[in-house]
Amino acid sequence: MLENPTNIQYKVHDLIRNRRSPLAFSDRKVEPEKLLTLLEAARWAPSSYNQQPWNFIVATKDHPAEYERMLSCIFYENKRWAQNAPVLILSVAKLHFDPPNPVNPDDTIENLMRLVANLHAKRGGEGNPHAFHDVGMAAANLTIQAIALDLFVHHIAGFYSDRAKSLFHIPQGYEPVSIVAIGYLGDSRKLPEDLRLREMEPRMRKPLEEFVFIQRWGHSSPVFTSQS
Amino acid sequence: MLENPTNIQYKVHDLIRNRRSPLAFSDRKVEPEKLLTLLEAARWAPSSYNQQPWNFIVATKDHPAEYERMLSCIFYENKRWAQNAPVLILSVAKLHFDPPNPVNPDDTIENLMRLVANLHAKRGGEGNPHAFHDVGMAAANLTIQAIALDLFVHHIAGFYSDRAKSLFHIPQGYEPVSIVAIGYLGDSRKLPEDLRLREMEPRMRKPLEEFVFIQRWGHSSPVFTSQS
Repeated sequence: MLENPTNIQYKVHDLIRNRRSPLAFSDRKVEPEKLLTLLEAARWAPSSYNQQPWNFIVATKDHPAEYERMLSCIFYENKRWAQNAPVLILSVAKLHFDPPNPVNPDDTIENLMRLVANLHAKRGGEGNPHAFHDVGMAAANLTIQAIALDLFVHHIAGFYSDRAKSLFHIPQGYEPVSIVAIGYLGDSRKLPEDLRLREMEPRMRKPLEEFVFIQRWGHSSPVFTSQS
Repeated sequence: MLENPTNIQYKVHDLIRNRRSPLAFSDRKVEPEKLLTLLEAARWAPSSYNQQPWNFIVATKDHPAEYERMLSCIFYENKRWAQNAPVLILSVAKLHFDPPNPVNPDDTIENLMRLVANLHAKRGGEGNPHAFHDVGMAAANLTIQAIALDLFVHHIAGFYSDRAKSLFHIPQGYEPVSIVAIGYLGDSRKLPEDLRLREMEPRMRKPLEEFVFIQRWGHSSPVFTSQS
């Protein structure tokens, strides 16, 4: 089914090994229960001070006008393949911390933690530097869950963020992050030739020694190297 | 083993359901093969234009001086529990795109894609807006892989970024993102009382209808609601 299974050296879990970002999506619909399960997986990601800065706007082919509106935000090169995905989800980051609740003796530890966090960084109502990072963690949870349900996800960074802001009425203090294309795997032979060739290319990653260091920047260890 | 199994409504995968951010870590060492597998899982995360903007500096208790240096970057409130984790990893985002390679007729599609990306956004050598998001996806992959190996991860946003930059000689154009504490689950009864109580609290998340919208911002659907 996958033309280019990845030659991964260490025994990572199948949900990680089998994940890839396809260009070929089937026209089979995504069942609402499955979509709900993907969003539930995103919901349980960790986040800085449990701020859960992720938001998702869902468009499916069941609602063609809304789907087209989402598609119109995507760069042409990505739209060529993304237009086959039955579900497109815009992820949106909340850029500021929630204001702390007033302290009271019955307060939960969670609220008090939030208060401390805000005071510590003098951040009340603004500047969550982990917003994009945490949206990324939620998006990765969604992606892993998709693999468990035979679905595939392709994250699209190449889209018109300002257009999405305007078309979807994203309020101030929130920022579109990516458009997440979701669906069942399609037949790559039906893709235009250039995309078909791209779909067949082996997945490439830097070797571990280029990005894993011990003790200080740039210092790699024989323990953390990719074997060739 | 887990004192507060989460009441999750939709059948998310066990690797997502069983994940949590513990405060109690055991003093059992993390085997180097397992640590390598976590980093390999991070390596295979997706990223914008396959830029792989993640970098990791690993400190373990096997090297006490280096471990202490990492620990010294963490806010006091987090250090209280993080000091028990046998592994601390600083994640660092590369904030700029790689400069495009020169075009040649034998160029890979991947290099050409990168070139197009840089030209499109006039970004040559700077400004990857998805750097933090993609580090988050790699960190989530690492976290899910940890659960598959009976390990637990707690991501720490509360640390002194400037101190980490200086102590670990992080070069310009790179930014510390978080410190990732990794280890086996410990006995929460050995925690200080306030942390023990916090460890027992149920995990809380916003209901789906607060962050999942259809068609436009703020418009929720009965399909995407949390059942109570």
